[in-house]
Amino acid sequence: MAKIFGKNCIYEAIRAGHKINKMYVLEQALEKNKNFIPLLNDKKIKYEVVDKKKMDSLFPTNHQGYGAIAQDYEYSDLEILFEKVQTEKRRIVLVLDGIEDPHNFGAILRSADAFGVKGVVIPKNRSVSITDTVAHISTGAIEYVPIVMVNNLQTALIKLKEQGYWIVGTDASGEVRASDLPSDLDLAVIIGSEGFGMSKVCKKQCDYILQIPMEGHVNSLNASVSCGIVLALIKQ
Amino acid sequence: MAKIFGKNCIYEAIRAGHKINKMYVLEQALEKNKNFIPLLNDKKIKYEVVDKKKMDSLFPTNHQGYGAIAQDYEYSDLEILFEKVQTEKRRIVLVLDGIEDPHNFGAILRSADAFGVKGVVIPKNRSVSITDTVAHISTGAIEYVPIVMVNNLQTALIKLKEQGYWIVGTDASGEVRASDLPSDLDLAVIIGSEGFGMSKVCKKQCDYILQIPMEGHVNSLNASVSCGIVLALIKQ
Repeated sequence: MAKIFGKNCIYEAIRAGHKINKMYVLEQALEKNKNFIPLLNDKKIKYEVVDKKKMDSLFPTNHQGYGAIAQDYEYSDLEILFEKVQTEKRRIVLVLDGIEDPHNFGAILRSADAFGVKGVVIPKNRSVSITDTVAHISTGAIEYVPIVMVNNLQTALIKLKEQGYWIVGTDASGEVRASDLPSDLDLAVIIGSEGFGMSKVCKKQCDYILQIPMEGHVNSLNASVSCGIVLALIKQ
Repeated sequence: MAKIFGKNCIYEAIRAGHKINKMYVLEQALEKNKNFIPLLNDKKIKYEVVDKKKMDSLFPTNHQGYGAIAQDYEYSDLEILFEKVQTEKRRIVLVLDGIEDPHNFGAILRSADAFGVKGVVIPKNRSVSITDTVAHISTGAIEYVPIVMVNNLQTALIKLKEQGYWIVGTDASGEVRASDLPSDLDLAVIIGSEGFGMSKVCKKQCDYILQIPMEGHVNSLNASVSCGIVLALIKQ
């Protein structure tokens, strides 16, 4: 069971048709939001109006008065993803190479949704997975971006290549600018881990290694910031 | 007193000449890093080699074996900042309009350093301030980016205008693309808060309102991601 909480997350879950077993709402939240109960009735979602004590016992305290017990988020499959996006133009997929911070994963999902990314691939080991926190931080974006968990990233990258995707990494050693990439390519963009950047096995699969021009002293960006920048530059 | 911890933060603090009262190092960290004690001796920094128990009692557990008790980070002043950067070309300053999450503030400082931002302005009230966590998340970038705390953001924006800065906001209502901005302008870039975006008083001061083209369902980005994207697009 997944716990969904926070106003935006709840609204996106309802909008996306996420199966909700039961909704919990704080009285004070309803006072400010008269349309919520009619929406729940319309969607035939069971609910209970509760006090703060009960709400706090059920959900993390940043629930904003809205919480739901819902069906688990489901991982997608690489083959299913390929089939689903077969006819779409300029397919972009993200490959997270060992992202471990749920805040980064959540922020990456927001960016993925905002820039029309078709799917996010994560490895089974040494990586974040879908948690209630990740879903919350994604502010509902998780409802729209298929997440594929694979046993082996290298194998996944090879499959992506076979499907016509070009593999793009980011690294200080990169010499290509995002604006130099042909604008019609299907891309699998690798986002390196917080501590170690892109792994050697993934780097070996890259067709392009992008560089984000920087001029500071520390010369490294937060992983989710770096991901957002690469997507924005590619989509320009 | 500030507590600085984590390998990168410690190295940047030493490199930047941050006054360190005393350094604490874990034995295991020294075994992997034979050059550290000579560096401390060279810089005449007092240190104590300690065990994990003592280290964990002094610093958050993500210390990586390195911690320092150091002089507090100091806020800068708007007038001092203006004087310092007077002769520099393409001055860019960030104005954080109510950022409250220390993780976002730390990530924003990393981006600020990476893209050569001259200073970051924050308001005194309803805003993050410099904390040990912020400094840690900035991975040392805080040593290089002057942070100015002001009583009133509107007054600060007016002073920035008087100094020749053009005020740039980001908002869904924006119609200007970063690439449309003349590349020689000095800019004060406003980053809206996590929950509410840019405030009305700040919006009123804007010469340009930028738009980040998005195509998703949720259509909002994490504040630090949004900041990184705007800086990358402006600096392109």
